[in-house]
Amino acid sequence: MTDELRPIEWTGDAIRVIDQTALPGRLAYDALESVDAVVDAIVRLEVRGAPALGAIGALGVALAMREGERHGWTDGQLDNAIGRIRAARPTAVNLAWGVDRVRPFIPQGIDAVLQAAFEIVAADERANRGIGERGADWIASRVARRPLRILTHCNTGVLATTAWGTALGIVRTLHERGAVEAVYVDETRPLLQGSRLTAWELVQYGIPHFVQVDGAAASTIVGGLVDVAIVGADRIAANGDVANKIGTLGVALACADAGIPFVVAAPRSTVDLATPTGADIHLELRSGAEVLGFANVAVAPEASRGWNPAFDVTPARLVSAIVTEDWVVEPARGETPFRVIQATP
Amino acid sequence: MTDELRPIEWTGDAIRVIDQTALPGRLAYDALESVDAVVDAIVRLEVRGAPALGAIGALGVALAMREGERHGWTDGQLDNAIGRIRAARPTAVNLAWGVDRVRPFIPQGIDAVLQAAFEIVAADERANRGIGERGADWIASRVARRPLRILTHCNTGVLATTAWGTALGIVRTLHERGAVEAVYVDETRPLLQGSRLTAWELVQYGIPHFVQVDGAAASTIVGGLVDVAIVGADRIAANGDVANKIGTLGVALACADAGIPFVVAAPRSTVDLATPTGADIHLELRSGAEVLGFANVAVAPEASRGWNPAFDVTPARLVSAIVTEDWVVEPARGETPFRVIQATP
Repeated sequence: MTDELRPIEWTGDAIRVIDQTALPGRLAYDALESVDAVVDAIVRLEVRGAPALGAIGALGVALAMREGERHGWTDGQLDNAIGRIRAARPTAVNLAWGVDRVRPFIPQGIDAVLQAAFEIVAADERANRGIGERGADWIASRVARRPLRILTHCNTGVLATTAWGTALGIVRTLHERGAVEAVYVDETRPLLQGSRLTAWELVQYGIPHFVQVDGAAASTIVGGLVDVAIVGADRIAANGDVANKIGTLGVALACADAGIPFVVAAPRSTVDLATPTGADIHLELRSGAEVLGFANVAVAPEASRGWNPAFDVTPARLVSAIVTEDWVVEPARGETPFRVIQATP
Repeated sequence: MTDELRPIEWTGDAIRVIDQTALPGRLAYDALESVDAVVDAIVRLEVRGAPALGAIGALGVALAMREGERHGWTDGQLDNAIGRIRAARPTAVNLAWGVDRVRPFIPQGIDAVLQAAFEIVAADERANRGIGERGADWIASRVARRPLRILTHCNTGVLATTAWGTALGIVRTLHERGAVEAVYVDETRPLLQGSRLTAWELVQYGIPHFVQVDGAAASTIVGGLVDVAIVGADRIAANGDVANKIGTLGVALACADAGIPFVVAAPRSTVDLATPTGADIHLELRSGAEVLGFANVAVAPEASRGWNPAFDVTPARLVSAIVTEDWVVEPARGETPFRVIQATP
């Protein structure tokens, strides 16, 4: 067990991040010193993961203020710069949420904004550890087999958050309880967050795991090799529909067919009550080039086009549980985040 | 439209094959002049696809006889060489079938074996064109939308057969009828037969297509972008369970959820009545290294293990239709290949 990694930190004049595009080959840090650098890091997925985007959105506002001070920006220029960070990626509600959360403090100055941003970071770690405990408890109560065989998709660990992780945080909590036999890690094409990032984290934590192609998930689940699937979320609609990394829906369909729980883990900030259903979520369509090549090698004919949605929507009926730091809802049984949040203000 | 490609041909002293590992970058041919070369080409997937394996199995027996003549092999040595070809890959029934079909002609000499092998190749083309017509008719009768949006997985075209293709043969027949709007091509990790081979074929035929990651298939289907999925098969059990390239099961689950037809196309020789159900099919587990790397670049930590089943089994209940050259059965409605074959000797 290593010391907890800190993938996003404020250094005083920059945001220091782990450059996730360099993993698993090497652990490299990058100091983001301008709004341009922040936007670029978000677009290139050097920083990714819904909770991490919330943190970098909030810290990004402070960085924009510092840059504005240096260059004598007008309020309009500052607004514009912050708007560029806010819109760098469209699907995760957390990025805009992080920006909007600290924006009201701008008139009070950069220290007030920073304090609000630090609180978001601290709250993220508290939330993730809470998700870990709550999710581990829920799974322990619903799945009889010990130790557990778990499937996960994409990366939802430290690298997607500011500490501990969400779905992978539940895996870590279960592992601390001695309850994990192995984790099947979907490689998560096209950008391979599973094989590059999740497998790397699991090596750090000493958790046994297998990397598999995304197409193997259905047979691993339906074939009885998995007891529970745990994934993250980029946006959760009021009715319990879940937008998450492309390939998640296939995992959910296989879990429903196999009769095993499909668990979504996310901080409460991922729930967007302003989004009634999954049909209302704007799903980012990324460049087809990400599908047509890899590591600078073309894997498809030049004349072919790529279809590259970054996310899919899993309907609430397939979601056994949504685990946040505050509550668990069971959409497949008809519960909705909307009703739970209404009931627990 | 190009002249029909001939991916497997007998040259008189060798089997000339398209080296599929070089596609889509370049169209290269390789002359296999020994049993070792044939086994190597099969293991490295230079030649792949169930019907193509049947043809190369049959021609391989003739090649083994020629090599035996040159080196003065005993009957035992020849048997051993033929057995190595027969066992080069375990899942596709066609490889062993092709070998066994011509083996009885060995006592009559190499010309008799070759004649039997050529008949297999000719029968494959007849079968595939028959599958194309029958499959196109079935789909036209079941799907209202025109033109059709089709999803396919792996490669089932000319490159997987000796001519025309099976599942992709149906797509070609539908395209000749002017009925195809676009094809969504699953890239088919880990070896990318979809993006490398199927997309390459579709470019040759002028059929509009999109390459997508395997994880996108479920959302493309459930999201209403696809009217029918058509895939091949490596082995079909008597009850209608279908072994096919890893990832096929996920496509079938999504089709069932979306209420669109999931069609399996294969020559009748792919049906193995000696295999009662999918549970009786030996599924090849390939090296984890194929998952842990991509285009010779490591994409996972060295300490990670890969889980790499080459095939999965789609249960009969999810299979809308199995199309062969002789008949169509509808396993999801309770029909089985066993009963149809019993009824039509």
